[in-house]
Amino acid sequence: MLGASGVATKAGGRPLAYLRETGFAGRVYPINPRHRALFGFDCFPSLDALPEVPDLVVVAIPAEGVLPAVRQAAAMGVGAMVIYTSGFAEVGPEGGAAEREIRGICERTGLIVCGPNCQGIANLFNGLAVNFSTALSEGQPKPGPIGIVSQSGLVGALIASECMARSLGLGYLVSTGNEAGFEFADAVAHMTADPRIRVVVGYLEGIRDVARFRAAALRAREKGKPLVVLKAGRSSAAARAAASHTGALAGSARLHDALFAELGVMVEESLEDLVDAAVTLGAALPPPRGARVGIVGNSGGFNVLCTDDLHRFGLELASLSEPTRAEIAAHLPPFLPAQNPVDLASLPQADPATARALLQRVADDPGVDIVICCFGAIRAASAALTAELAAFARSAAKPMVAAWLASAPAGFVALSAAGVPTFTDPSRAARAARRLLDAAARPAGGAAPPADAAPADAASVAALVRQARREGRGVIGEAALLPALGRLGLRVPRMARVRTPEEAETAFAALGADGVAVKIDSPDIPHKTEAGGVALGIASPAACREAARTILGAVREKAPGAAIEGLLVAEMVGGGRAEVMIGIKRDPILGPFVAVGLGGVFVEILGDVAFRAAPFGEAEATALLRSLKAWPLLDGARDRPRLDVPALARAIAAVSRLAVAVPEIGELDLNPVLVGREGEGAVVVDALLRLAPAGAPRHGGGLMRNEAVEESGELDA
Amino acid sequence: MLGASGVATKAGGRPLAYLRETGFAGRVYPINPRHRALFGFDCFPSLDALPEVPDLVVVAIPAEGVLPAVRQAAAMGVGAMVIYTSGFAEVGPEGGAAEREIRGICERTGLIVCGPNCQGIANLFNGLAVNFSTALSEGQPKPGPIGIVSQSGLVGALIASECMARSLGLGYLVSTGNEAGFEFADAVAHMTADPRIRVVVGYLEGIRDVARFRAAALRAREKGKPLVVLKAGRSSAAARAAASHTGALAGSARLHDALFAELGVMVEESLEDLVDAAVTLGAALPPPRGARVGIVGNSGGFNVLCTDDLHRFGLELASLSEPTRAEIAAHLPPFLPAQNPVDLASLPQADPATARALLQRVADDPGVDIVICCFGAIRAASAALTAELAAFARSAAKPMVAAWLASAPAGFVALSAAGVPTFTDPSRAARAARRLLDAAARPAGGAAPPADAAPADAASVAALVRQARREGRGVIGEAALLPALGRLGLRVPRMARVRTPEEAETAFAALGADGVAVKIDSPDIPHKTEAGGVALGIASPAACREAARTILGAVREKAPGAAIEGLLVAEMVGGGRAEVMIGIKRDPILGPFVAVGLGGVFVEILGDVAFRAAPFGEAEATALLRSLKAWPLLDGARDRPRLDVPALARAIAAVSRLAVAVPEIGELDLNPVLVGREGEGAVVVDALLRLAPAGAPRHGGGLMRNEAVEESGELDA
Repeated sequence: MLGASGVATKAGGRPLAYLRETGFAGRVYPINPRHRALFGFDCFPSLDALPEVPDLVVVAIPAEGVLPAVRQAAAMGVGAMVIYTSGFAEVGPEGGAAEREIRGICERTGLIVCGPNCQGIANLFNGLAVNFSTALSEGQPKPGPIGIVSQSGLVGALIASECMARSLGLGYLVSTGNEAGFEFADAVAHMTADPRIRVVVGYLEGIRDVARFRAAALRAREKGKPLVVLKAGRSSAAARAAASHTGALAGSARLHDALFAELGVMVEESLEDLVDAAVTLGAALPPPRGARVGIVGNSGGFNVLCTDDLHRFGLELASLSEPTRAEIAAHLPPFLPAQNPVDLASLPQADPATARALLQRVADDPGVDIVICCFGAIRAASAALTAELAAFARSAAKPMVAAWLASAPAGFVALSAAGVPTFTDPSRAARAARRLLDAAARPAGGAAPPADAAPADAASVAALVRQARREGRGVIGEAALLPALGRLGLRVPRMARVRTPEEAETAFAALGADGVAVKIDSPDIPHKTEAGGVALGIASPAACREAARTILGAVREKAPGAAIEGLLVAEMVGGGRAEVMIGIKRDPILGPFVAVGLGGVFVEILGDVAFRAAPFGEAEATALLRSLKAWPLLDGARDRPRLDVPALARAIAAVSRLAVAVPEIGELDLNPVLVGREGEGAVVVDALLRLAPAGAPRHGGGLMRNEAVEESGELDA
Repeated sequence: MLGASGVATKAGGRPLAYLRETGFAGRVYPINPRHRALFGFDCFPSLDALPEVPDLVVVAIPAEGVLPAVRQAAAMGVGAMVIYTSGFAEVGPEGGAAEREIRGICERTGLIVCGPNCQGIANLFNGLAVNFSTALSEGQPKPGPIGIVSQSGLVGALIASECMARSLGLGYLVSTGNEAGFEFADAVAHMTADPRIRVVVGYLEGIRDVARFRAAALRAREKGKPLVVLKAGRSSAAARAAASHTGALAGSARLHDALFAELGVMVEESLEDLVDAAVTLGAALPPPRGARVGIVGNSGGFNVLCTDDLHRFGLELASLSEPTRAEIAAHLPPFLPAQNPVDLASLPQADPATARALLQRVADDPGVDIVICCFGAIRAASAALTAELAAFARSAAKPMVAAWLASAPAGFVALSAAGVPTFTDPSRAARAARRLLDAAARPAGGAAPPADAAPADAASVAALVRQARREGRGVIGEAALLPALGRLGLRVPRMARVRTPEEAETAFAALGADGVAVKIDSPDIPHKTEAGGVALGIASPAACREAARTILGAVREKAPGAAIEGLLVAEMVGGGRAEVMIGIKRDPILGPFVAVGLGGVFVEILGDVAFRAAPFGEAEATALLRSLKAWPLLDGARDRPRLDVPALARAIAAVSRLAVAVPEIGELDLNPVLVGREGEGAVVVDALLRLAPAGAPRHGGGLMRNEAVEESGELDA
């Protein structure tokens, strides 16, 4: 411990006090030239004065000394460091430079650095708690199945406090801070590899390396361990995204959501929800086999509310079998209906053992998958009742959660500690049941989606992109793009590029189509209709010539400065039953995503767009389409024809591969793609590509904050 | 007190104990022949042995004695009764009969009865607490501005407990039970008339008399006092409604929501939310003038989360002025940005007075409307900091709410008691700010919507309804209905009713239209298209004859048993830019509602339907249209033409008056109503009316439960 302090409320002192209290079995060396001993540990003047090379060096000295200490530790062969000190990337360029140097040392030497600007790590299994969070000064948490990782020290501490208040076991409490060499995903990977950990909950401001995050999340899913995150910074992200038009649909919060959904990461919206998730998924409950809930309580009002909450969270009120109802009826006064929700009225207080027996009956009923206990105003009988409930829970073959309202607080803790997720609101109990179901429903397989081969001829699109870059153009329009997309395997209309009205007339005849569209071809006019640059449904060579003349005139007037490459004459595509938008949106951190939505009101007015990280296959593309509100329109709802979803899914999957094959694509917008009835295919009618900014910086995620100052106030050296 | 008990945990004893403790100033007479005195009050053997006629009689005797006691009390001239006893309408027909008799006595004599099957009433201002809720055995709440009314005793007790735990003042705690003579609305009316009450929060299972509820809610709104309800039984209502096709759109939970929105009743979704609303709206805060929030805290992480929450709840992050930022910067280390959200880091603990001064600066900033304090891990400095925050709050000109996380519990209570709504989650604090804004935004005027005159010729629809009833038909189809609607002032297509293909041919010529629709006219075929009973776009007399022939053939085959009245030949209506559905839905308790939605995907796939209780005027109709997701389509979004909203609103208002004028209408479905561009009008193209069940019972709302048994276990007589 570099910068060790004798003051237990300081960052350099609190961990020493904790290690002393818990009797940590390893060797602990405080380092501070001004002390002989601290908290009963012998104190040393400097790192090189230690009797051995330590496995781990904790740093709580002012910022200017940190980089030398890292260099020294790396040279000594230290394995890992935890750096509490603030004053790095979060304070400006100078700090950023020092932090990059630490990062470089880690990469060169294999040294693992947690921090800087973090509250440190705690392994509660072996007592190696070098974390200065105040949560650990409130008492010793018992070791247990909940892992906590947080990019904010205080948020992690809050989760730990809440778990400790319920007497729940904690496995790890890790604050990752600036993540110079050890990041959120690394903590997740470490925790999920530990068989004693059942759930990992995390506070995440930004993903640093999406590949590491992806691997850690998939590994967690594979092991059947829920990873639950609270993603902060959603709104500022949305604001940033709303700045550009496509951005408004593709707000990066939605991209994060898409990534989390793909990886089976469970997402919570508030701190309280995150704590509830930790409480729920940290309990050793049998996974529910379905959504049918039996409610047992002592208040009609709470039971009614809880029933409403089932509905809110997509759960079902179980139907009890006749024998179950008969047994309940035998113990209740005749005026209480023996049905679900079961109102035991005064029985739980008067006769807790019988209440437990009836609870057992409800749980044993084949129509019940999950049990919610909903008790209110339990005071005198609290100890007896909670003992019965806990005994039931220990051997229950089905999961149980509880609402404990306006009742003895000791009962709340007793139930929680007995492994029953317990809440002070029926709503939160019902939501916990939903979480159990969601966790059980996550796909067990953890394999990454098949890395499909690059599309047949992405080279043609790549060539267009290189040419545009050379010519300093940021946009590629349909005239060049559609033929290239055609070579990729997407269906596009037959078309001809022409320069004059007379050529347009000739092109009409050459295309041999019943009708054509004539459009202006200009890299400077992305919105052609507004500039008077489009004529549709042209049915004769002469009309085609006239249309071309009119368009050229209108465009010269409305967009006088635009460079005109010519005109596009394309066959009109009939048979389209739905207009679909397929897009690529590249996030600087998360990488390329594909966006899909139905044109017209669904995308424009309802924002009904679904995202998935590229690449993926046709099955995933179909699932993406199914997630749209507009899906029934593709699926033939209400006597509509079923449309060619397989063709559309093939096109979407091809676009997803293109997104990976050509990383210079910043945005691609295929809109509309006309989808016909089953077997009629999907045709890309218009397309626009925006190049990614050249050499766009890959900036690390998250807001930088000052962790150490947040809580301990100052460092002592 | 009939059935007085010496046991303070029983229903007949707890109120006596409470009245004794609080030193209630009125005279209290326990009645129980087996006792001489109870809790220091002289005991009497019977009601008629009392030395005076009491103002209020409380009844805690077994059910069989209740009705005689009510009769006796009414005869003696007692003003009011509170009946705890269960065993009435909630247990079956026999109890229901007794309850109806009590109701009858109330109506005849003016006796006011609260209950039966309730936990009673408590007026905490004068100490008249004849409520056996356990909440009141936890201590004496201080009198204050929060009124609680609940159809479940335990739910009311829970709200009271939570307020008491925060040291907040309570005015009333009323449990209304079976509401034989005193209902939810009466309690609301009484409380809002009391100038000491600032907010009324209620748990509502069912509205008994919608007119009384409406009057009470409007009176509350007029006085600027928020009425906040948790409406239980939403899901079972939804299930009931989903049984019928139109019902699925018109689930009665949505009708309740529509009524609440109209009346300015604030709705909460969970118990916890209801308590949060009581805490927030019970505080004496200046109303916010806008949605711009300044956040002041000591943790970057919590500040980021709180900022996200603003976004979630439709609030804005305020921009601080340059002087405010400069003053903040002067007190912070240089690496902390002086901007909103303001991270004071260690300052609040190190120097609470300066923290308060900066808070004051933020509140004084002209860009700030609401302040959220967001503090975490405050322990040692808790008392000093909360004292400063409370002092600030006492004189603040802008409202402040607080999040107090993983910090000293005493600080939570101290802040709450000082009038700062305080929560353990930034999310809940942000939501509280939203509630303040919503409460301030409720329309101040409390007048009922103008009771428009009945529509010009509702008589023609009424006559159709009477005829159908006489003939035992439950449905009226478009052939008869559209002309009647035309006389009402709605625009309908010109049409002719014919019996044969030949008559159809003649009718085509007579109508003089470019095109017509031919449809089957049968009371037995509500879904004409499915039965092959519709042909559209018929353009010649001969085609009209053929279409009629084809239709008659198809219908005879597909619906062989249907009675065929003939055919309808109606002009095709052009120019329709949107298809709108206007409906009437009559709820047996809440009365008639009008439903409005855009046809096609919006109603069918998205369930985008808005409801409002009839009758109402054109302004309200327009507001209803604006509340639709599909509103942009009517309003000319994205280069679409603006449609004739005034004509549509006139039609909707006329339908709303029809709903009141003809109470025999159970459901009316005008679908589609074709709406043209501005000035082109709105034409009803198809219509179907279902009669209300003859003599449909007006059943009382809510589930019946056994209140007394819920909590006290048993009665003692």
